[in-house]
Amino acid sequence: MKHNFGAGPGILPHEVLKQASEAVIDFNGTGLSLLEISHRSKEFEAVLDEAVLLVKELFGVPEGYSVLFLQGGASTQFALAPYNLLPSTGKAAYLETGVWANKALKEAKFFGEVEIVASSKESNFTYIPKDYTIPADAAYFHITSNNTIYGTQLQEFPKSPIPLVCDMSSDIFSRKVNVADFGLIYAGAQKNMGPAGVTLVIVKDEILGKVDRKIPAMFNYQVQIEGGSMYNTPPCFAIYVSMLTLRWLKAKGGVEVIEQENITKARVLYDEIERNPLFKPVCATEDRSHMNVTFVMENAELEKPFLKLCDERGIVGIKGHRSVGGFRASIYNALPITSVYALIDVMQEFAESNK
Amino acid sequence: MKHNFGAGPGILPHEVLKQASEAVIDFNGTGLSLLEISHRSKEFEAVLDEAVLLVKELFGVPEGYSVLFLQGGASTQFALAPYNLLPSTGKAAYLETGVWANKALKEAKFFGEVEIVASSKESNFTYIPKDYTIPADAAYFHITSNNTIYGTQLQEFPKSPIPLVCDMSSDIFSRKVNVADFGLIYAGAQKNMGPAGVTLVIVKDEILGKVDRKIPAMFNYQVQIEGGSMYNTPPCFAIYVSMLTLRWLKAKGGVEVIEQENITKARVLYDEIERNPLFKPVCATEDRSHMNVTFVMENAELEKPFLKLCDERGIVGIKGHRSVGGFRASIYNALPITSVYALIDVMQEFAESNK
Repeated sequence: MKHNFGAGPGILPHEVLKQASEAVIDFNGTGLSLLEISHRSKEFEAVLDEAVLLVKELFGVPEGYSVLFLQGGASTQFALAPYNLLPSTGKAAYLETGVWANKALKEAKFFGEVEIVASSKESNFTYIPKDYTIPADAAYFHITSNNTIYGTQLQEFPKSPIPLVCDMSSDIFSRKVNVADFGLIYAGAQKNMGPAGVTLVIVKDEILGKVDRKIPAMFNYQVQIEGGSMYNTPPCFAIYVSMLTLRWLKAKGGVEVIEQENITKARVLYDEIERNPLFKPVCATEDRSHMNVTFVMENAELEKPFLKLCDERGIVGIKGHRSVGGFRASIYNALPITSVYALIDVMQEFAESNK
Repeated sequence: MKHNFGAGPGILPHEVLKQASEAVIDFNGTGLSLLEISHRSKEFEAVLDEAVLLVKELFGVPEGYSVLFLQGGASTQFALAPYNLLPSTGKAAYLETGVWANKALKEAKFFGEVEIVASSKESNFTYIPKDYTIPADAAYFHITSNNTIYGTQLQEFPKSPIPLVCDMSSDIFSRKVNVADFGLIYAGAQKNMGPAGVTLVIVKDEILGKVDRKIPAMFNYQVQIEGGSMYNTPPCFAIYVSMLTLRWLKAKGGVEVIEQENITKARVLYDEIERNPLFKPVCATEDRSHMNVTFVMENAELEKPFLKLCDERGIVGIKGHRSVGGFRASIYNALPITSVYALIDVMQEFAESNK
């Protein structure tokens, strides 16, 4: 039994993996693998339709928004957001809360002017800046809802006078969000929604078509909307596994239910980090992520023996990102609370033997 | 038993599907699914490294070329080729041999001037134009090696004084190619190489870096080369299945062996189409594809009953594309010759009962 705390591609529900494995051999009794059927077949079209419907239902997507399943990861969206939304004579506003936010704003500079409204770079991104003004004359305001590397998360979204664009790659479907407050939401699937290879995009239709730049077909949200995510062959398997994961989430009771589970998992783990004399948290209390729990050791020499003990106990993926050090326990939707307790047990056992 | 003649996503070898199915549950004895391990893990890095090596070995990729596994399909490469290779004051030359070639050249127009050196559009693309001059002052010459919809294929590649760019989506790894004759080769995986969701790019390093346009990271071949196809999270599963398919091809004896099999499969099928009084071929004899065999009926009223009989005999995916009509039997690498004989049997049975 492995406890998968990896930061992503991350843990998926066991029953999803079982169904996905079966579909690779025989998809829905067709006698063919899901990997070798046409994306234009009625069987695959039903998968895509259900995936779109589940996103709308689970996330409460209102009328006037389109749901897309695209390729290229959030990093491609870093470019597509300004490609589609930022006039070449305009500017875009960015909140810099980590390396990924920084990569996003760098891509925007290819298309127009960028204003960084606030940054926590000087503290190595251990908190979310809150004291800033969103420029009303910018084309959009870009935020990163959860910062995987540092373990910070926007617990409240800013009220924005301009379209709010949000990279939700590492916390989508982990908590209730009012989609109507956003102009564009995008997320690589490989944390909470499915495997690597597909990216969810939720876009408010009325914010599109306002730049006069010519946009190649594959980079044009309007073309992708018209094509129903099938302007060209979509990543069928990754969409199918995402659909299964969304089905699993619905069967669990939806986003509200998983949000409570995530709060509990985060709370018991942060409590242990606070309580355990060997460990300490990294981030500002009010900005701590419910998805990626970062912590370090008071005595860095104990890091290696702790990782060794974790490995022996089947706890994988908790080594921290090199830019933060220490540890990072990613506790995505599919991670059961029993795995969190398994980690806490190891932390306590290790503290006992290192008094 | 199904005989899968689908045009793509197309048939994959049974043993590949079996291994892929197992890896979705437990990848190489890690106790974790391939879908939930880090792309930076040594286990996945070994997969990507092997996939790159197999491409180089099986396709004879010389020194000075980079092999990439990207996302977005060939349609994304339609834009990335000119993005990276066509100066805004320059022009690119295109051979128009079908709808996909046409889509490719339309994307190039976003970036510079386009010269169509020849086209078979007036005959609905039933042949490959051969009498043309490649302009020596163009940045590159773009061709489509196999035209899936129409069933035509370049049996010989043109000698080009400028970098030759080729969309090989529907015949890559089906025949020996002298890679040194090309500047850029790209191919969506979902015909001969793997599942939908990954695109192979083989690019000659020295043709890059010659446009002064600024290119967003994800669209920049040089950035992807520096990142070793891992500038961001790659489509891990699609790469894994492609690697397994390339391993299968190597075990069979490589491209030379499969090329002979493909010639045989195509020959027996075209022979039957020529011989059978109910059917006739669509394309010019010398340009007939060894991958997608198109044919129509002398009497179009028999089309539906023939498709019905095919369906009863487990023959799937042979309905022709709407722009050609009739039938299209895609006989990709993984399709066994026994399936071709199964189709021929049905053609003969149908002809017997419709004398």
